[in-house]
Amino acid sequence: MNLYFSPLACSMATRIAFYEADAKVDYIQVNTKLKQLQDGADFYAINALGQVPVLRTGDGSLLSENTAILPYVAELFPDAQLAPSDRLQHARMQQWLGFISTELHKALFVPLLDPHASEPVKTYAREHAALRLGHLQEHFTSHEFLLDRFSVADAYLVTVLNWAPYCGIDLAQWPQLKAYFDRQLQRPSIAKALAEELALYRAKS
Amino acid sequence: MNLYFSPLACSMATRIAFYEADAKVDYIQVNTKLKQLQDGADFYAINALGQVPVLRTGDGSLLSENTAILPYVAELFPDAQLAPSDRLQHARMQQWLGFISTELHKALFVPLLDPHASEPVKTYAREHAALRLGHLQEHFTSHEFLLDRFSVADAYLVTVLNWAPYCGIDLAQWPQLKAYFDRQLQRPSIAKALAEELALYRAKS
Repeated sequence: MNLYFSPLACSMATRIAFYEADAKVDYIQVNTKLKQLQDGADFYAINALGQVPVLRTGDGSLLSENTAILPYVAELFPDAQLAPSDRLQHARMQQWLGFISTELHKALFVPLLDPHASEPVKTYAREHAALRLGHLQEHFTSHEFLLDRFSVADAYLVTVLNWAPYCGIDLAQWPQLKAYFDRQLQRPSIAKALAEELALYRAKS
Repeated sequence: MNLYFSPLACSMATRIAFYEADAKVDYIQVNTKLKQLQDGADFYAINALGQVPVLRTGDGSLLSENTAILPYVAELFPDAQLAPSDRLQHARMQQWLGFISTELHKALFVPLLDPHASEPVKTYAREHAALRLGHLQEHFTSHEFLLDRFSVADAYLVTVLNWAPYCGIDLAQWPQLKAYFDRQLQRPSIAKALAEELALYRAKS
């Protein structure tokens, strides 16, 4: 399998899942600004939207979207217990993945991290930040993880929360959320993924 | 089961799925502006984010997010064949649901339909419209549905495409996409859901 990724982008969530599962994967770095692979090959040929992550499966199929790749990887490696098997709990995991992808990733962080987004666009993105992050604060007041135990939803949440300091969001305003994030940073799969991708990010900058 | 919905909102996708499955469901209308039920009850007590759809399952659990509810409903009614059973094809369905929820629903239509969004915000939302809708145009040049046959992903796509004329997007610019949309409008479940919700939408306006 191949994972097309960009350092510290949302593709890091899938790397974390692979580390949790101790899976053998080739990681292929994408220059998402130029939409090229490291050898100059056109990334639009891999993903028409030019976005990471893309997973190339064992049979050569290309799969995109975090909310699809993460549950798929969890299913491929059941021993790692990265997703619940119970039907309703599995739907609850998709609910969290959906929340992270729409409310946090797309509506909040993408405009805040986009150097081409104007100030009114960033202000609009920030308007609902308190509602969204407050929702997580409330959850982590009584939960250790998004579900009963670590899942791919946590891998995705940690990956997007890691962007907060780069766009002026201080997680300390939501202390239970901050405590959750700090706990997850101690998790070996996450610590390893983050250290490696941070080094790659610095090397490309 | 109960479906909390608002007329012509994204919750219509789940109604379409229920009509496909011939499922007995109570539909509870939400005033998403006031965040109240019809009897004035607080909708935030049902969903902390104030969004439809919310599904109340048979055991009383509350489930939100289209990308979670739609596959869950498909699983509840396997005879309706609203989702593929093959693992990779199921992931492909989640990929389309993810694309619709992030690229179309959240990044394009929410700002364009929001009366509080300023002109720079709407302009920013429109910037990637051609890439996103062009991706669908390309797909429907050689496909009848998003997958090999009708699925909940089509129910969701038709629901969001239905918003296009309300925000100045003329689907005729993407003729294969427009032809797909027009074909789907003939589907009995969709025609029925749309006619009913249009009547409810007009009644509330």
